[in-house]
Amino acid sequence: MTATTTHSRTEDEPLDQQCPFCIVATGGETPHNTQHDIVRTNRHAIALISPRWWPNNKGHVLIVSKHHYENLYELPREHGHAVQDLLREIAIAIRHTYDCHGISTRQHNEPAGDQDVWHFHAHAFPRFAGDNLYTSEPIPEFVSFQERQVYAAKLRTFFLSLPAL
Amino acid sequence: MTATTTHSRTEDEPLDQQCPFCIVATGGETPHNTQHDIVRTNRHAIALISPRWWPNNKGHVLIVSKHHYENLYELPREHGHAVQDLLREIAIAIRHTYDCHGISTRQHNEPAGDQDVWHFHAHAFPRFAGDNLYTSEPIPEFVSFQERQVYAAKLRTFFLSLPAL
Repeated sequence: MTATTTHSRTEDEPLDQQCPFCIVATGGETPHNTQHDIVRTNRHAIALISPRWWPNNKGHVLIVSKHHYENLYELPREHGHAVQDLLREIAIAIRHTYDCHGISTRQHNEPAGDQDVWHFHAHAFPRFAGDNLYTSEPIPEFVSFQERQVYAAKLRTFFLSLPAL
Repeated sequence: MTATTTHSRTEDEPLDQQCPFCIVATGGETPHNTQHDIVRTNRHAIALISPRWWPNNKGHVLIVSKHHYENLYELPREHGHAVQDLLREIAIAIRHTYDCHGISTRQHNEPAGDQDVWHFHAHAFPRFAGDNLYTSEPIPEFVSFQERQVYAAKLRTFFLSLPAL
């Protein structure tokens, strides 16, 4: 199916050395995420604690394609399936461990669609009655390693407790 | 994987006769959607023009599981893959035909997560710079059949123009 943007890579092309999600997906770290933020992976996707939080939805998780696809238009089917599998597992894990009462997900494409990192990612948010997720602004500062690890530990403990999914 | 809610059905159980998405997915119509709103289907999912619009993002599309699963927690993998495939195809089709500049998607689970129909569905929105999707309220009135068909025709024409996806 025809992609809309002109930017396109395939699995055979080199990873983007500047892309923060490529760095984390290939074992590196950035000023805002380390390998310790990764809470679960599968064949084509990783899940990590977001370094940016909304004030009433702390500890939300990003599901990121392992390979560099810029957006949903370019994400191949098999990679999309991996993202969807991981999104569901993370939704269940957050719901069981964050003391929240719902989950919502969202995914942004292109600047007009609120995308701000040019590597496919979806967001999974813990939700609470009256949390004003859609009308609140994200906290301007990046979240510290220690703050992120509180939530990473919750999710890792949940997944370790399951003999099989 | 353990589901969070107590409500759970399997494919062998009867469809929910009261559920508006079950009615449309099985060939019927409701006061707000008919079979003419369906713009594309695959094995386990259907895409239809939403009967509720946001003021600056008209014609947005719902991707609905054919079977009655209440939410993401309960959606089996194969059905999730079908939803993801259709979501990507619809995103590309909207981007090519609505004169918009981006796409965003979202999906809600449980009342605290902003869910309001108890059958799994995801939203695909056309996006425009400054559209205030997240801070605007949906238009209170349901959209008329004629208004929905303007957008359904755009998407159907796009899919018919593709020899293969």
